[in-house]
Amino acid sequence: MFSRFQQEFFLAKAETLKPQLKRWKVSADAVVTPVKDCTVWQDYRMVKGDLDTFLQNNDFVNGSSFIVSLPETTVGQIAFTIDFCKGYADSPSRLQITCGELPREVIDAGLPYNGTLNGSWLQTEVITIDDLPCQVILPRRYSGKYIRFDMLNVPGSVKFSDIHIIACGVEDSLLPPPENLPELLKKIDQASIRTLRNCMQHSFEDGPKRDRRLWLGDLRLQAMVNKVTYRRFDIVARCIYLLAGTLLPDGEVCGCVMEHPFPRSGCHTHDYAMLFPLLLEEHCRWSGDLTVGEELFDLAEYQLKLMERFFDNGLFVGISDPFKDWFFVDHDLELDRQAAMQGHAITGYHSLVKLALMLGKVDKAAEFNAKADLLVSVAREKLFNPATGLVESGKDRQLSYASQIWMIISKVLTPQEGRKALQTIENTPGALKPSSPYMFHYLLEAWDICGDKEHLMELLTGYYGGMIKNGADTFWEVYRPDEPFFSPYEDIRMNSACHAWSGTAAYFLRK
Amino acid sequence: MFSRFQQEFFLAKAETLKPQLKRWKVSADAVVTPVKDCTVWQDYRMVKGDLDTFLQNNDFVNGSSFIVSLPETTVGQIAFTIDFCKGYADSPSRLQITCGELPREVIDAGLPYNGTLNGSWLQTEVITIDDLPCQVILPRRYSGKYIRFDMLNVPGSVKFSDIHIIACGVEDSLLPPPENLPELLKKIDQASIRTLRNCMQHSFEDGPKRDRRLWLGDLRLQAMVNKVTYRRFDIVARCIYLLAGTLLPDGEVCGCVMEHPFPRSGCHTHDYAMLFPLLLEEHCRWSGDLTVGEELFDLAEYQLKLMERFFDNGLFVGISDPFKDWFFVDHDLELDRQAAMQGHAITGYHSLVKLALMLGKVDKAAEFNAKADLLVSVAREKLFNPATGLVESGKDRQLSYASQIWMIISKVLTPQEGRKALQTIENTPGALKPSSPYMFHYLLEAWDICGDKEHLMELLTGYYGGMIKNGADTFWEVYRPDEPFFSPYEDIRMNSACHAWSGTAAYFLRK
Repeated sequence: MFSRFQQEFFLAKAETLKPQLKRWKVSADAVVTPVKDCTVWQDYRMVKGDLDTFLQNNDFVNGSSFIVSLPETTVGQIAFTIDFCKGYADSPSRLQITCGELPREVIDAGLPYNGTLNGSWLQTEVITIDDLPCQVILPRRYSGKYIRFDMLNVPGSVKFSDIHIIACGVEDSLLPPPENLPELLKKIDQASIRTLRNCMQHSFEDGPKRDRRLWLGDLRLQAMVNKVTYRRFDIVARCIYLLAGTLLPDGEVCGCVMEHPFPRSGCHTHDYAMLFPLLLEEHCRWSGDLTVGEELFDLAEYQLKLMERFFDNGLFVGISDPFKDWFFVDHDLELDRQAAMQGHAITGYHSLVKLALMLGKVDKAAEFNAKADLLVSVAREKLFNPATGLVESGKDRQLSYASQIWMIISKVLTPQEGRKALQTIENTPGALKPSSPYMFHYLLEAWDICGDKEHLMELLTGYYGGMIKNGADTFWEVYRPDEPFFSPYEDIRMNSACHAWSGTAAYFLRK
Repeated sequence: MFSRFQQEFFLAKAETLKPQLKRWKVSADAVVTPVKDCTVWQDYRMVKGDLDTFLQNNDFVNGSSFIVSLPETTVGQIAFTIDFCKGYADSPSRLQITCGELPREVIDAGLPYNGTLNGSWLQTEVITIDDLPCQVILPRRYSGKYIRFDMLNVPGSVKFSDIHIIACGVEDSLLPPPENLPELLKKIDQASIRTLRNCMQHSFEDGPKRDRRLWLGDLRLQAMVNKVTYRRFDIVARCIYLLAGTLLPDGEVCGCVMEHPFPRSGCHTHDYAMLFPLLLEEHCRWSGDLTVGEELFDLAEYQLKLMERFFDNGLFVGISDPFKDWFFVDHDLELDRQAAMQGHAITGYHSLVKLALMLGKVDKAAEFNAKADLLVSVAREKLFNPATGLVESGKDRQLSYASQIWMIISKVLTPQEGRKALQTIENTPGALKPSSPYMFHYLLEAWDICGDKEHLMELLTGYYGGMIKNGADTFWEVYRPDEPFFSPYEDIRMNSACHAWSGTAAYFLRK
């Protein structure tokens, strides 16, 4: 596809769009004591105490520790002042500092880690301070609401003050919630916006605590919330250019871009690549900026061209080697992805049609329309069961929310058919449910398309409201209401509690 | 004594003399494997291998580690390049890095520390590197010849290259040894100069690894070596001004100054304060700069005035509260310090006499001469036993090297008497021997005064040469030839292997 030279041009455009981050101070406002309480999410209640009094009245010696909390989940650098208590500090001070989004990250800071992802993602540092008194600013960025201090080796006893985070982000404040909303929905709206704001750094990150990279799938969702809130289309454009500047060797847009130390591509994620035309078309339409559409139209087209190898006579037959060809769709290995991927491709072609029309490329529009039509008709013929009103996927005719949802998003089903399919699947024992909030977003979107406001609101208040009731002020990467200790990584401390793909509630509340 | 205002003036003078440190690169030049060998100092031999080959051929995964060595003990910041091996780094890298002057500091890096000094002095850091590849420069300064890398959490496997220390100091190179010296003495000379060079930072530090502060007692010894080597009298003057600018509330010059975050006094160390006139007089004489002598003459005089409370009719009777009034003299709690302290005071008065004469204060000279004479005659009467030719100290008439030495330094004994006393004490069973290299220096000085070159050279080659034979290239804070595992701090890892007070051999070889 695009040459290295052309890609460098897109990276240069991305660079010109790199935002100057704002910085602001978020002070710790309470000392917290974890209290075991099995009625609470993940079994611990954080009991707050007055921080100033606590810090004034307490000196800390080797082996002691304490935890403070912040008024909201914040992204930035931890800062504090430390001084000695008596005489003079005759030696350096060695501290362990742990930042946590959720209580167990700080409560269990001392426990061994045996999760599946690299333990370096745990937000813990051992620092050595040469001279006291000293204001310390940790060099790395963290995401959290709790900070734990452990005195490993301090000279005699030490005191702390002015514990805060130097927050950073493209935007420093939240937008007020729509006035007419009930209280819970206001909280959902604010948590959704906070999630977006905290992820909006030099690019739209998937999570400011872990991964911290630009995922194409997450970006499309962030762009939706951004449209109804901050409208920072410059950051969306920057991200699109980053994707266009870091193509995989075969020309596919990669699933994720790592920005540092220089922008480069992560892995093949074919479902995300199929959504690239959708991302591009929505961005052009919402921002009114057609330049990026002009520049990247060919690239968008090429993504679907690349995917043709996964189709046989208009039917998705892909998934042969799950390690080589990753069709993510949802965090669920059991899910048969045929119908969902058919939907992704159709959505991609539909987006190309709209984009072609926007750019005056009438012939192209007709060409993609034809391709979409073929896939739609094959889908209706092979995947849709008119008898049950349900979409079935794969050889085993698997029933899942995901299959219904993607046939709705891709307009293979009419809104009426879709509404019926979703209602039917709800009452189908054994049908695979959405696993990750990423899939829950597309369920919200599907209900929205079908005009089923009741189910939409029920999901918002039930699923997203459930996180709020469990203490969230940003939305979580993983939320299974009945499995508080579930982690895809086999350690709950590794879960991200501020994660882009969970943050689209505000879009549905505000659009 | 001097007002806060006057002290600030001295600190301002010290600031104007603050040196710009040189920086230079010292690359690791070998990978080393520790091999247990009980014939070797502290039981481990470090077997060297080719570093480039080792780093090129090895990838490092979680749990792996390696140790490199440098061509010489170096002070500065550790730096290296780290990269991932395959695919891309999907997460940060967490490493433990340990710097050691002697092998056991890195070999035993993982063992628990239960020494008496704060464990934060152990030169170990846990760092987290966000993005690979990356050149890492650790922010703190270390002193060492060995660097150990432990992979705590790395993404897959990682590679290292360009491991080095960005060295720092007032002087970047050693001076060549005097040509006519035998090989061992050349090595002693070089280790002595390297010790001085490594300690010569923004002030003369006692040890670049631990304490890292300006001790008056050590400074006098460093000034002696400096006189016959680098002749950086500006740094000596700076240190004297730092001492004059950080007086204790009673006007006593403190035992040590901590420079950071702002210069301030450590503890009372009365024997050091009594040597302040000696330090000042020698500096003025050697540098030819009388200004500092003029400015600080009153302060030097005041030190001995303050000490009068420890004397009764010209005899030192001090030591009542060892925690309040510290008379260091040597690392030996059993040592009776009466004779040594008598010697310190006399040395102080003699120095005041010389300084007064240098500055044309004839009346003052006479006054101090009279005071010195009284103390000398009392010392001869009460402490010197003409029958044995030995100096006896305290109620129990304790016999020690320290007592003989300080009666020689202070000229209470003639060189002939001193020579006889030292020879006699050598053959006196139960006489307390010098414990620390600080005391060994004064033994060298005493033999020098007595003109006993044979003993002087024997001590140089035996004691200081012993460290060389045990692998030293800088001289150690603590060296007991028969006790390789002795530490005043109950953990050998805490001992400093580059320590100012051990580094005066070059003075005697070059003066």
